[in-house]
Amino acid sequence: MVKAAVLGYGTVGSGIVEVIEKNADVIAAHGVDMHVKYILDLRDFPGDPFEKLVVHDIETILADDEVKVVCEAMGGVEPAFTFSKRAMEAGKSVCTSNKELVAAKGDELMKIAKENNVNYLFEASVGGGIPIIRTLNDALTAERIESIQGILNGTTNYILTKMEREGADFDGVLKEAQEKGYAERNPEADIEGYDACRKIAILVSVISHKKADWEKVRTEGITKITPEDFKYAHKLGRTIKLIAMCEKNGDGYYAMVSPRMIKTDNPINAAQDVFNAVLVHSDMLDDSLYYGRGAGKLPTASAVVGDAIEEARHVGEHFSTGWTSEEAKLLDIDTYRTSYFVRLKGVPAERASELAAAFSKYELVDAGLSGEFGIVTGELEEGTFKKAFESLKDAIGYIRL
Amino acid sequence: MVKAAVLGYGTVGSGIVEVIEKNADVIAAHGVDMHVKYILDLRDFPGDPFEKLVVHDIETILADDEVKVVCEAMGGVEPAFTFSKRAMEAGKSVCTSNKELVAAKGDELMKIAKENNVNYLFEASVGGGIPIIRTLNDALTAERIESIQGILNGTTNYILTKMEREGADFDGVLKEAQEKGYAERNPEADIEGYDACRKIAILVSVISHKKADWEKVRTEGITKITPEDFKYAHKLGRTIKLIAMCEKNGDGYYAMVSPRMIKTDNPINAAQDVFNAVLVHSDMLDDSLYYGRGAGKLPTASAVVGDAIEEARHVGEHFSTGWTSEEAKLLDIDTYRTSYFVRLKGVPAERASELAAAFSKYELVDAGLSGEFGIVTGELEEGTFKKAFESLKDAIGYIRL
Repeated sequence: MVKAAVLGYGTVGSGIVEVIEKNADVIAAHGVDMHVKYILDLRDFPGDPFEKLVVHDIETILADDEVKVVCEAMGGVEPAFTFSKRAMEAGKSVCTSNKELVAAKGDELMKIAKENNVNYLFEASVGGGIPIIRTLNDALTAERIESIQGILNGTTNYILTKMEREGADFDGVLKEAQEKGYAERNPEADIEGYDACRKIAILVSVISHKKADWEKVRTEGITKITPEDFKYAHKLGRTIKLIAMCEKNGDGYYAMVSPRMIKTDNPINAAQDVFNAVLVHSDMLDDSLYYGRGAGKLPTASAVVGDAIEEARHVGEHFSTGWTSEEAKLLDIDTYRTSYFVRLKGVPAERASELAAAFSKYELVDAGLSGEFGIVTGELEEGTFKKAFESLKDAIGYIRL
Repeated sequence: MVKAAVLGYGTVGSGIVEVIEKNADVIAAHGVDMHVKYILDLRDFPGDPFEKLVVHDIETILADDEVKVVCEAMGGVEPAFTFSKRAMEAGKSVCTSNKELVAAKGDELMKIAKENNVNYLFEASVGGGIPIIRTLNDALTAERIESIQGILNGTTNYILTKMEREGADFDGVLKEAQEKGYAERNPEADIEGYDACRKIAILVSVISHKKADWEKVRTEGITKITPEDFKYAHKLGRTIKLIAMCEKNGDGYYAMVSPRMIKTDNPINAAQDVFNAVLVHSDMLDDSLYYGRGAGKLPTASAVVGDAIEEARHVGEHFSTGWTSEEAKLLDIDTYRTSYFVRLKGVPAERASELAAAFSKYELVDAGLSGEFGIVTGELEEGTFKKAFESLKDAIGYIRL
């Protein structure tokens, strides 16, 4: 029997205990007999069915040789980093849902895992219950990964889906999402794209085997998206999604998080409401898509437990692939080429041809909105586009295609 | 360095050699240095870049201790079974794309793998390049899998997609698919659903850890689907797909392959043309979807090589989970409950209420076709429905919802 400890008894932590104990028979059918021995939390949980497992001191867990697997669901960099490090130094494998920690110090933790002949796994840090990390590390191992496009944040996808369906504006939908608990009271990390940004940086690290600095990823959120933008998108047979993407180019990677107008028949558009989806393009397999719940107590917990099971199957054996501390080469996003939708106000449509000077090739889009129209540019470098956009005083917004 | 042998130098076999050699650097980045030492085929391949690796006698491969991994891409049960068995008895792991063999004798081969401390992997036997087997065996290990719905055959999905887009009839589209090489000259295995049937039986075996007999799975193909059926489907906000499904019920499983009218916003509908998709419903994660190319030289080969890499990482260690020779309990499909679309000809719509006697609850569907209409029944047991359907002389066809 393998004994596990769970660090943090919040939403995900309590989900981990629930999954391990409720599905013990399922886990046993996969060859692993696992139970929770300790739950670390500062609080007590009187009346909780697992209250007797709660301890307040990490030393209790570290000193117990019976504990082989530690599930970290504390969030944040500290003390999660120190606890994870010490657990591995004590010969225990660690699995986590903590994307802040993986994005910030994944390289160090993987090195510590290797040195101590244990494993550090982090499936739940990207895409919640979607097995995207394992797919990249263990299944698509013969594939040269050329690009990844992901809807990696459920809150923003919920907001965009609702704006699209109801023609509602951003502020109203955000407020409703907050009331329903789909968005945090301080929603900045989600709506400004920072959460998705950490996740795409983790994916770049996984496919490049080097550390990608999430702070260098150009990140734009969804706060400026309007119901009118959706009208233009529909006119173009498209919709608007917050896309976290990376694209291999030579020995470097373009990486960006931003709203994009994608075609409605793009398989990534299967992700509606809080669902996430990751579209991987690789050289042999072509496109493949992984879709599911990208957040939530049980889906996230299930991914952590899946990692714990993998670690329990390999006690005493280091197997996890990861990335080194060498920095992944993130390319200057100003040289990234794509097309753009641009919205113009106060320009008579007859004068539209003048715009050709700014965007060498374009098409007009009339969504029936009074006093304005849109254009779709040809493929341009981001830097070139931005200059042209800024020179157009009547341009009131843009969205990448 | 790990040496591999490839059995069969046809479409998939030559793809396997191509993937291993072209992407040797990618594979090395995953910690495996692998090259092909032998290709077994009855033919010679003068001028082929790998002609020198071709051997005609399996004994050459079996006798070579340097070969640790054997990729079987021969198809059919024999001699693939005997060669796979002997390879494992000689201490070599085997991976395969051969669904006939896995469906027929997977249990025996997995037992032989265990006895010889090697592995038998078969990712490519279901869904081509989609990593569905690994996901079920290694990622969703904390999940109670409640149902699987799959579009598991690319040929039929291509035909249905084209029929829908062009309003064309089955025979014409099949002929065109044959000319383009998307359908075999003898298309029976695809269009009658037998290919999808073997694949869903393999998936039932994977999730039940017992052997599911594909010959006991009710299987209906797509030959009776007409352009008119699509008109009714669209009227209902649905489309028609050949769905291979299994559903856990108590300690048994319903399993069936048949055309079904699914909602257009069902994520499985992301699979257009030759693409496949598998929608898994499980207790903690809820819905998750896996999408990609379900056939084709390189996607299938890539899945075989992914397995070969996993085996190369674990030389001398048996790890693969599989199923026993105990028979999985397949439930009588006549007790399966769903709703049905029924097409009626020559019945005046005014008389429709009489149909209530046959289908206790129903709605009418008028797709504007002269002299006919459709009904959607309430949820009924398959056996009850079939009896009612046969008693209606004006009913000319049905499709399950």
